[in-house]
Amino acid sequence: MKVAVIMGSINDLDVMKEALDVLEALGIPYEARVVSAHRTPDYMFQFAQEAEREFDVIIAGAGGAAHLPGMTASLTPLPVIGVPIPTRHLGGLDSLLSIVQMPRGTPVATVAIGNAANAAYLAARILGVKYPHIREKVREHMKKMREEVLSKSFIKSFSINT
Amino acid sequence: MKVAVIMGSINDLDVMKEALDVLEALGIPYEARVVSAHRTPDYMFQFAQEAEREFDVIIAGAGGAAHLPGMTASLTPLPVIGVPIPTRHLGGLDSLLSIVQMPRGTPVATVAIGNAANAAYLAARILGVKYPHIREKVREHMKKMREEVLSKSFIKSFSINT
Amino acid sequence: MKVAVIMGSINDLDVMKEALDVLEALGIPYEARVVSAHRTPDYMFQFAQEAEREFDVIIAGAGGAAHLPGMTASLTPLPVIGVPIPTRHLGGLDSLLSIVQMPRGTPVATVAIGNAANAAYLAARILGVKYPHIREKVREHMKKMREEVLSKSFIKSFSINT
Amino acid sequence: MKVAVIMGSINDLDVMKEALDVLEALGIPYEARVVSAHRTPDYMFQFAQEAEREFDVIIAGAGGAAHLPGMTASLTPLPVIGVPIPTRHLGGLDSLLSIVQMPRGTPVATVAIGNAANAAYLAARILGVKYPHIREKVREHMKKMREEVLSKSFIKSFSINT
Amino acid sequence: MKVAVIMGSINDLDVMKEALDVLEALGIPYEARVVSAHRTPDYMFQFAQEAEREFDVIIAGAGGAAHLPGMTASLTPLPVIGVPIPTRHLGGLDSLLSIVQMPRGTPVATVAIGNAANAAYLAARILGVKYPHIREKVREHMKKMREEVLSKSFIKSFSINT
Amino acid sequence: MKVAVIMGSINDLDVMKEALDVLEALGIPYEARVVSAHRTPDYMFQFAQEAEREFDVIIAGAGGAAHLPGMTASLTPLPVIGVPIPTRHLGGLDSLLSIVQMPRGTPVATVAIGNAANAAYLAARILGVKYPHIREKVREHMKKMREEVLSKSFIKSFSINT
Amino acid sequence: MKVAVIMGSINDLDVMKEALDVLEALGIPYEARVVSAHRTPDYMFQFAQEAEREFDVIIAGAGGAAHLPGMTASLTPLPVIGVPIPTRHLGGLDSLLSIVQMPRGTPVATVAIGNAANAAYLAARILGVKYPHIREKVREHMKKMREEVLSKSFIKSFSINT
Amino acid sequence: MKVAVIMGSINDLDVMKEALDVLEALGIPYEARVVSAHRTPDYMFQFAQEAEREFDVIIAGAGGAAHLPGMTASLTPLPVIGVPIPTRHLGGLDSLLSIVQMPRGTPVATVAIGNAANAAYLAARILGVKYPHIREKVREHMKKMREEVLSKSFIKSFSINT
Repeated sequence: MKVAVIMGSINDLDVMKEALDVLEALGIPYEARVVSAHRTPDYMFQFAQEAEREFDVIIAGAGGAAHLPGMTASLTPLPVIGVPIPTRHLGGLDSLLSIVQMPRGTPVATVAIGNAANAAYLAARILGVKYPHIREKVREHMKKMREEVLSKSFIKSFSINT
Repeated sequence: MKVAVIMGSINDLDVMKEALDVLEALGIPYEARVVSAHRTPDYMFQFAQEAEREFDVIIAGAGGAAHLPGMTASLTPLPVIGVPIPTRHLGGLDSLLSIVQMPRGTPVATVAIGNAANAAYLAARILGVKYPHIREKVREHMKKMREEVLSKSFIKSFSINT
Repeated sequence: MKVAVIMGSINDLDVMKEALDVLEALGIPYEARVVSAHRTPDYMFQFAQEAEREFDVIIAGAGGAAHLPGMTASLTPLPVIGVPIPTRHLGGLDSLLSIVQMPRGTPVATVAIGNAANAAYLAARILGVKYPHIREKVREHMKKMREEVLSKSFIKSFSINT
Repeated sequence: MKVAVIMGSINDLDVMKEALDVLEALGIPYEARVVSAHRTPDYMFQFAQEAEREFDVIIAGAGGAAHLPGMTASLTPLPVIGVPIPTRHLGGLDSLLSIVQMPRGTPVATVAIGNAANAAYLAARILGVKYPHIREKVREHMKKMREEVLSKSFIKSFSINT
Repeated sequence: MKVAVIMGSINDLDVMKEALDVLEALGIPYEARVVSAHRTPDYMFQFAQEAEREFDVIIAGAGGAAHLPGMTASLTPLPVIGVPIPTRHLGGLDSLLSIVQMPRGTPVATVAIGNAANAAYLAARILGVKYPHIREKVREHMKKMREEVLSKSFIKSFSINT
Repeated sequence: MKVAVIMGSINDLDVMKEALDVLEALGIPYEARVVSAHRTPDYMFQFAQEAEREFDVIIAGAGGAAHLPGMTASLTPLPVIGVPIPTRHLGGLDSLLSIVQMPRGTPVATVAIGNAANAAYLAARILGVKYPHIREKVREHMKKMREEVLSKSFIKSFSINT
Repeated sequence: MKVAVIMGSINDLDVMKEALDVLEALGIPYEARVVSAHRTPDYMFQFAQEAEREFDVIIAGAGGAAHLPGMTASLTPLPVIGVPIPTRHLGGLDSLLSIVQMPRGTPVATVAIGNAANAAYLAARILGVKYPHIREKVREHMKKMREEVLSKSFIKSFSINT
Repeated sequence: MKVAVIMGSINDLDVMKEALDVLEALGIPYEARVVSAHRTPDYMFQFAQEAEREFDVIIAGAGGAAHLPGMTASLTPLPVIGVPIPTRHLGGLDSLLSIVQMPRGTPVATVAIGNAANAAYLAARILGVKYPHIREKVREHMKKMREEVLSKSFIKSFSINT
């Protein structure tokens, strides 16, 4: 069981770092690499075509005209999760539309702009279909989130003396 | 192995029908239901919480303030695929943002606006992590798409007599 | 007479704080709580379903795929006011659309992005339908705003010697 | 108990008609009028300032640079519900922003683009704070919506012979 | 000859200041006031209705659900120039649409977001229709802008030694 | 007294026709021409530079990358009114931004997308600064609009027998 | 001298047809093919990498998550012109952003949404850098457009008897 | 062989500087100038009409209602590359649409918002059609980008002891 975490530029690591942290916290092995659709198309090609041998799920982050997730999905039958990297001028709306609006037949599982953590949680849910202990990790994480909120739900009460 | 296909309204079936067709073509068992986040919150709750018993993946289509995919994801550790249903006035941009912009910890695997077919193909890719014969179906489909394009790639050539 | 002020995350308090301040200034009792649609769906369920016992109006703030106001509205016949929390990448346009674009039958009374103060003023207007002294408070506030503007309306006059 | 339903143009009645139908179905008295912020500002002024005498809630529909709901709210302490009328070129996004983005102190309870029915349901929820029988009507409507969905939730099941 | 410069809030003066500076530079008398559509609707009413007595052109700046320019235009036959004030969350797109998308019969002469200087230059062009010396001022300003650019048009030249 | 009505393409006449009708109704002389910024830049140049001799106000309609209004404004000290022509794919948002977002020093008085009638009404307001009988025409038109609304303001009243 | 015209789907031919017509009118040889980034990534790879042997310029049309132009540009040093194909739900804004927002180092020369004709005219301008007779064709076309407008510039004149 | 780099304002040099740097790095002669469509229309006219004598390609940067690239393209048969300068309030979406949405017959080769470097790389690709040594420079740059990514593709690997 292994997840590939690829990104179009080393600058994307600021955002993608969260995916790595979450995968580690969930005990999911991964390999993280810079694979650029536009600067290393041949390497992307080779990486995606061989990914099936080593990986179960691919997380791909890219910004602007973000072609990496969709191109990867066109080269492998693995599930590919796309992370729209925020952009300076359009806030990542360009990244989001470039990743999510894939044509019929080649889906990319898109998460929120800049939300690399959710790409990792989604990878865990996908792996959980096969691996019960990962499903359990997801369940635990959901439970933990719930408890954190419940433990400090109360903020303030205000009443009027009458 | 079974996929749940839920949608917020029976009107969404026009769009979601494609998901059913693709699942059938790929030989993936499913059950399709109307489950409304806003009209049947208790039923959505129960359905999502028990989904794990029967289903491996959930496909949820919803439009406008599309809460069904995200709420379902908050109630089950299964992977949830969201289909933004096109809307009359904003083209489905509202549906897309309501589905994809999920907060940290609760991901929805979002596909393109109105692209229910891709939700099915994504479900197949996810199931393919566990089931080799589904992976094979995805591969076949990719091959078939490729061949269809290649068989009629040529459109026209125009040259100048010299 | 009591207003519930709920928000999806304690981080939303920066924005929602203004609602609390306004309610206090208007002498309207409230209870403020973190209730997360995605991290504590069961608690949200319970809270919303029981809200009628204790509250007259609910103010709900949420950001991104902001499901809290709409889900709460689906679980109670109380009027629910939604506050779209600004988001880092899309400025809160995602929050606004996720809150306001509710389907037929389940309305959320949406106010401006980040304008929690107005949620409180709207709650006061709603309570004013039943409680004359709250209506009076609204009237006084409107009068006070008017006077503040009028007292320093003049900025500058420029004329030409002829 | 009475609701005012005003709209900027008689052309808006196509959309606003739904509000009238819902109010009638809920047994809520109303008076519907064309009141144009831009063509009859003095009449809008008078209408809004005197509204308190006769009405409990105001529903105002307007499109484009939709000033009617906000101006009405500035002239009365009643709760004002704004319905963004869809527009030909921008789908009603202009109407939505012109209505919802009100400044601090003067809230408009905004519903979805073109969703006049929800303005009526919201009016009922607001009136329900004071009138128990209207609260009951809202509850019944929620129940009815729920039952309609549940009665035909099942769409289709597909399985594989093995 | 006099221009009225009104704005919805004293906070808008940061942006509107430029209009005052340009009017002074062009030698056009003006009076600047805060007139709030939502906090002082009656004063806006009176101001706009009487504006004709004293002013030739009105410049109105407002942000968000920016109703001041359009309402003013509905209350006077004077030409009204609208300045969309930039907003924190939507960059002023809300202000722009609220000002420019006026219905048939009540135009607002809208300038760029935050471009109060251009409101003043437009006022000068309008006054220039009647007052030749103001037309001359516009012409001079155009000439001056031209000369400033031409005097330092050259930036850099780069060539290859061969 | 004369208004120039120019448009980038004869196809824009469908939209611009309304400006002509309104000008005629108001008794304002005009000359209408196709002047294309991109196909006849030299003619645009000449037309705009000589416009001052014959015209008092210029109305310019253009769509997409709508350069005609802004370029005309850069070539004449006359007030230039821009009409964003609706576009097929973006609804005219491109036209609006291309026209309204002019840089400091060269304003275009922009009206709503597709609202050529308002360009004519704005021209009348501008001419009214100089010509009292045109001011009177504007006033009459405002009065007429008001009366039309008031004469049929009432739509429907609904009450409950008790 | 030869231009490659590729498109992601045979359905794009409705839009791309115009590019073919213009190239023929300008006497520029071309070859038109369906090359799908997502369905035939290997073919796209091969086509783009070998394009230099046969072609001078590539025109690539694609819609939605439009990866064809950008991926082609990453695989060849030829100038690549991108045509954003209009999309049903977002009007082609998704196509535009996916094509134009390319990262540093891999440019795509993007034209207007749905404007395949301009892709051909741009190709002609590019070829004109090398081939004087193509430059001449561009000049002739510009002249012809100019004459067509000038020959029927006058629309209507309206004056008042005095 | 020479490229003209023009920009609407000296303030645009912050963004356009990158184009100059890239042209120098590629050994492409250029001349950079401020040419303002709105402040120096006559100079723009003259510059564009004479450009053919001296230049092979024009790069034009402009922001907001960015008319410089399109107007230049209407005055010369040279290929014109447009750089949308980022804007303060709309992020450059206004610049992008004003540049890219050109009408049939007058194309502008548009690159990403603020991506002046890509304008230079595109100029090099265009010049490469004629000049083999520039084609070679493009090829080298693509190779260099590739190598830079490949040399540090690996980021991190995480595995679980079992």
